[in-house]
Amino acid sequence: MKTNDQTLSIFALGGINEIGKNMYAVQYSNDIIIIDCGGKFPDETLLGIDLIIPDVTYLEENKEKVRALIVTHGHEDHIGGIPYFLRKLNVPIYATRFTLGLIELKLEEHRLMRDTKLVQVDSDSKLELGEIGVSFFRTSHSIPDCLGIVFHTPEGNVVHTGDFKFDLTPVNEQRSDIHKMADIGEQGVLLLLSESTNAERTGLTPTERIVGDHMDEAFMKAQGKVIVSTFASNVNRVQQVIHSAQKTNRKLALLGRSMVNVVSVAIERGYLNVPDNMMIEAHEIDGMDPERVAVLCTGSQGEPMAALARLASGNYRDTSILPGDTVILAASPIPGNERDVSRIIDNLFQLGAKVIYGSGSSTGMHVSGHGYQEDLKLMLTLMKPKYFIPIHGEFRMLHHHRLLAESVGVEKGNTFIIQNGDVIDIEDSTARQTRKIPAGDTYVDGMGVGDVGDIILRDRRQLSEDGMLVIVITISKTDKKIVSGPDTISRGFVYARNSDDLLKEVNRLVKKSVNDLQEANIHQWNVMKQNIKKSVGKYLYGQTRRKPMILPIIIEI
Amino acid sequence: MKTNDQTLSIFALGGINEIGKNMYAVQYSNDIIIIDCGGKFPDETLLGIDLIIPDVTYLEENKEKVRALIVTHGHEDHIGGIPYFLRKLNVPIYATRFTLGLIELKLEEHRLMRDTKLVQVDSDSKLELGEIGVSFFRTSHSIPDCLGIVFHTPEGNVVHTGDFKFDLTPVNEQRSDIHKMADIGEQGVLLLLSESTNAERTGLTPTERIVGDHMDEAFMKAQGKVIVSTFASNVNRVQQVIHSAQKTNRKLALLGRSMVNVVSVAIERGYLNVPDNMMIEAHEIDGMDPERVAVLCTGSQGEPMAALARLASGNYRDTSILPGDTVILAASPIPGNERDVSRIIDNLFQLGAKVIYGSGSSTGMHVSGHGYQEDLKLMLTLMKPKYFIPIHGEFRMLHHHRLLAESVGVEKGNTFIIQNGDVIDIEDSTARQTRKIPAGDTYVDGMGVGDVGDIILRDRRQLSEDGMLVIVITISKTDKKIVSGPDTISRGFVYARNSDDLLKEVNRLVKKSVNDLQEANIHQWNVMKQNIKKSVGKYLYGQTRRKPMILPIIIEI
Repeated sequence: MKTNDQTLSIFALGGINEIGKNMYAVQYSNDIIIIDCGGKFPDETLLGIDLIIPDVTYLEENKEKVRALIVTHGHEDHIGGIPYFLRKLNVPIYATRFTLGLIELKLEEHRLMRDTKLVQVDSDSKLELGEIGVSFFRTSHSIPDCLGIVFHTPEGNVVHTGDFKFDLTPVNEQRSDIHKMADIGEQGVLLLLSESTNAERTGLTPTERIVGDHMDEAFMKAQGKVIVSTFASNVNRVQQVIHSAQKTNRKLALLGRSMVNVVSVAIERGYLNVPDNMMIEAHEIDGMDPERVAVLCTGSQGEPMAALARLASGNYRDTSILPGDTVILAASPIPGNERDVSRIIDNLFQLGAKVIYGSGSSTGMHVSGHGYQEDLKLMLTLMKPKYFIPIHGEFRMLHHHRLLAESVGVEKGNTFIIQNGDVIDIEDSTARQTRKIPAGDTYVDGMGVGDVGDIILRDRRQLSEDGMLVIVITISKTDKKIVSGPDTISRGFVYARNSDDLLKEVNRLVKKSVNDLQEANIHQWNVMKQNIKKSVGKYLYGQTRRKPMILPIIIEI
Repeated sequence: MKTNDQTLSIFALGGINEIGKNMYAVQYSNDIIIIDCGGKFPDETLLGIDLIIPDVTYLEENKEKVRALIVTHGHEDHIGGIPYFLRKLNVPIYATRFTLGLIELKLEEHRLMRDTKLVQVDSDSKLELGEIGVSFFRTSHSIPDCLGIVFHTPEGNVVHTGDFKFDLTPVNEQRSDIHKMADIGEQGVLLLLSESTNAERTGLTPTERIVGDHMDEAFMKAQGKVIVSTFASNVNRVQQVIHSAQKTNRKLALLGRSMVNVVSVAIERGYLNVPDNMMIEAHEIDGMDPERVAVLCTGSQGEPMAALARLASGNYRDTSILPGDTVILAASPIPGNERDVSRIIDNLFQLGAKVIYGSGSSTGMHVSGHGYQEDLKLMLTLMKPKYFIPIHGEFRMLHHHRLLAESVGVEKGNTFIIQNGDVIDIEDSTARQTRKIPAGDTYVDGMGVGDVGDIILRDRRQLSEDGMLVIVITISKTDKKIVSGPDTISRGFVYARNSDDLLKEVNRLVKKSVNDLQEANIHQWNVMKQNIKKSVGKYLYGQTRRKPMILPIIIEI
């Protein structure tokens, strides 16, 4: 991108038209500041892919301009891509104390701690990064220590909200900086980027505090053990479970690696208050009176290898669910996870547990961390931006967020619904959508980053649907006659031992293909392979209505 | 199953602990009557499987006793398995006029019409099938012409509800036979089998009629075309769309094969009233004033090849969605389909359409056809059965249904939560859970029914995750030395052209494996293949963290 020296540019490398892999950037002249570097989990069509991260080609090409990665908060869709990103661009990372704790867990796992510069900031910090000044404001969300960011540029101020809701009675003391936001708005906001997750939902997000009341009630009624599953990073909810356990005189055990890790970070860094002697180890649970035990575990999204799924199927080593135990799912299933979660609930009922579950806030055990329409309108009202880019959401959410912006006074035509990679340039206080830079999905598969592309995925899809058939024939170098084979091996297609006739006919067709070509004096392997594929494929589809991958292998000897 | 001649037996071959493939049976002495024969759609773990149907081994083994298949209504989860079942057991099918219409569509497709005996019944019919008398009662559901069934046996009366809700103001004239149900209850019900789909939901299901009011309103407000997507079989909803179109002076086009087929059946058989000259062909849409056109289409579940998905992606031949058109999703996404549906909604908004969507009855454009808790309690109250088996639902639904039964007076211990294949025997008015008969999932894949089992699925899963690597070596018969190869071919794993070093090392490891064994004088192919798999697999996992299927092929020459 050839930016004019006086141009302010804004773009997203992820997070638009999707939930996940958030990555935004503000560029002024020769300074680029990146906001967040998230990951996204693949859907079931991306066979074998472990994680999706943003394509950062543009940033690599402008390496020398990238001043910083500022991270708004510690959720996976904002930090999950960091280890992969750092291997390409070693950029200093700015984040709050708790967010840094979660980033450090990741960097340790990827052995990147030593070479990474981490800078702790808080909502009072002020930074000068090249020509861009940066300040912050505090927001409420379902994880502690969240930031909104103000970029002070010669062209004007750009605000990025991070993820937020307005919770006027938060569980911790981290209140949204509403006065500061009002002040930022008063100073003038040229452009606002605001998150759109719940732009379809009317009203104001309920406060996290209602979960505490329901949790207390469930703990008081419970007769056996109480098992609560939630996101480990929802430290405020974890705190409320600790309170409920304390009030009902229960000890607390943590199950699941991320629960143990994240709670440790939260305790060490002062975000969780745990009474002395409350914590017990998993192996101590079964030795205690069930009425004196509570358990916090991972797996609220139905992840098959997480603690809750293993408890539900009776495969957890240290303890098991007994009839009369209470299991609380204190998290809503993310779209796509409903079936896995339902399976777990069924298993829990089969074990005789009392299960408290339900979607949304119907049980009072979950509230969203993302602002509803009234929260979003409040942010827009406080910031009163000239230009607006709804971010962090699928298209319908961005669309509704635009309508909200217009309803509180953002001028029609001043909202930009962009795609990842679209660049908004602002010059002389006028914003225009100009060029496109590379943006897209980079797939992580095992150790490979970006090495799995469309062809490999297409092959996996074909293999997954109908399996394959390998056909080996050995041909004489001298007279081009078949000297061995055809030998056929099938996997994922049909059982060889039940398919004698089918495979015999395949052999006959292969021989015929080869012989026909030889009679026509055609000896190119490619032609031979094409002919075999065609005749065998047609036959197999007619017989089975399946289309296995057919792999003819010709050995010349 | 060796039934004593005086034993009444009840069992399910599908529909328990699942939503789908409903199949239940009542047996008295030498007479077996089957209720429904449904299909179920595979989840994403069953790679390549097209449909799941019940395992009918027990019925095949007792062919001579099976008197009839009675079908309660025409939904896929009650009729989808019929064509496959008929190929194994040619049994007469009893169903209502509309249900038979849908069954006939299936039989024609499978070319089974000629050899199948179809018997039309209605709610007044009475049958004698061996020693079992059969009568019916009418229920309301989201498809016309639904039946509940009473089996009059020497041991007592067994009632099967089919799928139902109580809609006191139905759209058609098919009211639930409440008086008849009361009468059946008065005569005494030994055992009730009642559907459990909505046993988790409190209250009474809303009436279908509210959809009509919302539909009218949306049609009156609409400015361009109105496109409504719903289940073709929901004839009452289709009727309401027709009414709304008529009131706003719009012509109606049908898009999607099943919409055209099912609406034709409904019109022919008198279940739909369509004003003269209302219907137009798809290709006529674009020639008309958009304000004079309404469209009914398939694809409300996000099916990628259905009409709505193709409209949303701009790939429908006959017409396209224009800015300002109104699209109404008049169906709730079935769990598991949310993501596909959301993608379509996003695409529709991107085309500039006004989209009316939302889960459950939030938009007023959808109500459930399955009774909520108060409906279920009303049925239990009317029937006042001695014994109760909750059917048609996942475990948590059955569990809640049991609690409902107990709340209205079914004695504790008299509810049986069974598995598919569990047999409940009733003798001298006492029910006991006794034996198990074979039951399970039979997979349909292409033309194959039941030929795809665990090994093929396991192979497909491995292939889908990490692809494969075929390694061919040719060995001399005489001295067992390698004369050609190794040749490697990879698919779905890595791109060969980017993996020179990796594949060179694989070749080296293969040669080493072969040579090492030869030096040890070991020439068995199996050992050789095992060694190659092991050393290559270990190396590839270390380099890539992937586990492709490794297929060594040894040719001896």
